[in-house]
Amino acid sequence: MTMDLPDLPDLLAARRTLAGVVARTPVLRSDILDERAGARLFFKAEGLQLTGSFKVRGAYNKIRSLSAAELAPGLITVSAGNAALGAAWAARAVGARLVVVMPENAVPEKLAAVAALGARIEKDGVINATQAFERLARLREEHGYTLVHPFDDPFVIAGAGTAAWELLEEVPDLEALAVPTSGGGLLAGALLATRGLAPRAEVYGVQPEGADGLVRSLAAGVPTAPERVHSVADGLTAPKPGVLNFELIRRHAAGVVTVPDAAILDAMALIIRHLRVIVEPAGAAGLAGALADERFRDRRVGVLLSGSNTGTERVRDVLVAG
Amino acid sequence: MTMDLPDLPDLLAARRTLAGVVARTPVLRSDILDERAGARLFFKAEGLQLTGSFKVRGAYNKIRSLSAAELAPGLITVSAGNAALGAAWAARAVGARLVVVMPENAVPEKLAAVAALGARIEKDGVINATQAFERLARLREEHGYTLVHPFDDPFVIAGAGTAAWELLEEVPDLEALAVPTSGGGLLAGALLATRGLAPRAEVYGVQPEGADGLVRSLAAGVPTAPERVHSVADGLTAPKPGVLNFELIRRHAAGVVTVPDAAILDAMALIIRHLRVIVEPAGAAGLAGALADERFRDRRVGVLLSGSNTGTERVRDVLVAG
Repeated sequence: MTMDLPDLPDLLAARRTLAGVVARTPVLRSDILDERAGARLFFKAEGLQLTGSFKVRGAYNKIRSLSAAELAPGLITVSAGNAALGAAWAARAVGARLVVVMPENAVPEKLAAVAALGARIEKDGVINATQAFERLARLREEHGYTLVHPFDDPFVIAGAGTAAWELLEEVPDLEALAVPTSGGGLLAGALLATRGLAPRAEVYGVQPEGADGLVRSLAAGVPTAPERVHSVADGLTAPKPGVLNFELIRRHAAGVVTVPDAAILDAMALIIRHLRVIVEPAGAAGLAGALADERFRDRRVGVLLSGSNTGTERVRDVLVAG
Repeated sequence: MTMDLPDLPDLLAARRTLAGVVARTPVLRSDILDERAGARLFFKAEGLQLTGSFKVRGAYNKIRSLSAAELAPGLITVSAGNAALGAAWAARAVGARLVVVMPENAVPEKLAAVAALGARIEKDGVINATQAFERLARLREEHGYTLVHPFDDPFVIAGAGTAAWELLEEVPDLEALAVPTSGGGLLAGALLATRGLAPRAEVYGVQPEGADGLVRSLAAGVPTAPERVHSVADGLTAPKPGVLNFELIRRHAAGVVTVPDAAILDAMALIIRHLRVIVEPAGAAGLAGALADERFRDRRVGVLLSGSNTGTERVRDVLVAG
């Protein structure tokens, strides 16, 4: 099978495309969290990115790669929220129309923010990922929309990789990375970035126990979804990794750590308390993984805080519990 | 009266001293907050600075300026919290001993964090600023400690000015700045920074109504404390501006805006919701001022988010109310 796998030059091209367009997010530190983890942690705060997550990097890189003929019929994507927000921002930036297929039960703040960016939302009757992808296929057939895939695309992966690239520019001697993953865009992108800047660093994906499509895929040798996906981390509920993502991960990732939802919520509270930034549950999964797994102990670890789009009720709840 | 007023070269020297030591904090944006304010707002997120506030900039710049003979007897400062944290971090960085006079009723998180950085806290019987400065004077006399003033010092002002300097480097065409103020370190520093990078920008101080020492000082023509200081913004309760700070502010500031505590708490909730960072009440005062005063309308406004050191209970409370 030949695949158009993205590589280092694609990431470098994405960096040029994104320069001056997206934010260079800060790298945060906390002695208290280091002590908790028994490791030295460097947090890349992509929750402070435009649209509140890293997703805008890949979406903008993809949409800017499209020809006038591809932009003309309008664009379409599918997402529980962050990819939709990133694509909506990027589509508005280039003046393209965008349709987003989202689940009816998406986080209300995410639905409202996507609509506010001018995208048209298709959600009636869409409950799960299978229905979402079916709706997407039908709409593409009817209207000829150009697909902006939320993760399974070389431009999207290369764009996502610029987040880990910036982290490695600032902290070149990282020994391991902990990357929240479901579709695999951020993780595959981080693998490209380490290839360029830290070839010896081990890159680990982190998944919720209830959304462990990558673990199953690695066991099966092909992208494989669990029967049921359920996690508090709505941003990590793509049922299985993309084809390109899986191939890069299969070849280069050091492993995948799974964490229960309770550990994700604990990590969320720790991040808000000690790093002073809001994260959504998906954004806290990397820390949950770094705290849970012995392979991060005594090492210099990059932790990707992937996004911050969550309701304030959730923030209050974790601060009460934590 | 001749005074050793800091000027642009002092700020540039502070930048060199602080380069690679303190964090370059991000500038955050929100379309929603712009709409609320009827202005274009650029937030300098100093709550993500080391020790959770801008204060470490001035403290480190000051402590690094001291001779071995000045460091030898140990250092002393006085603070409700953020200046203490900054000085404690800086003293630890250079291996100096530090005594901090803090009020008994300081925010518990601030007391704990100062102690964790290795500073000795003197707080028994210290309730208000007068008592704190008396205690400081007595301890200096007894032990010969070298003073690290929390704001009334050329090195501290120049160090604080590097925050506004970085903001103006990123957003050179700001027309106004909104700066939380009590002792006047951040405000006086911002006046130095605009002199260098944006001479036409108008710089406004923002004070809580219950801690309006600067307003009274400007009316009286000399630093003058109100009879009573009381505000939810514990970081803005220095009773009156420093002598150097007042002189710079009197000469160069465009004005002072006062805001009620309720507006500060509303602004705090808006920042957490829309910028996805934690701020303490003092850190939210700049936005409260920008929202309240017509002079910011339709302009490009820099807002200093000065710090983030507050308890999670306060965060929960403002999210419930907001």
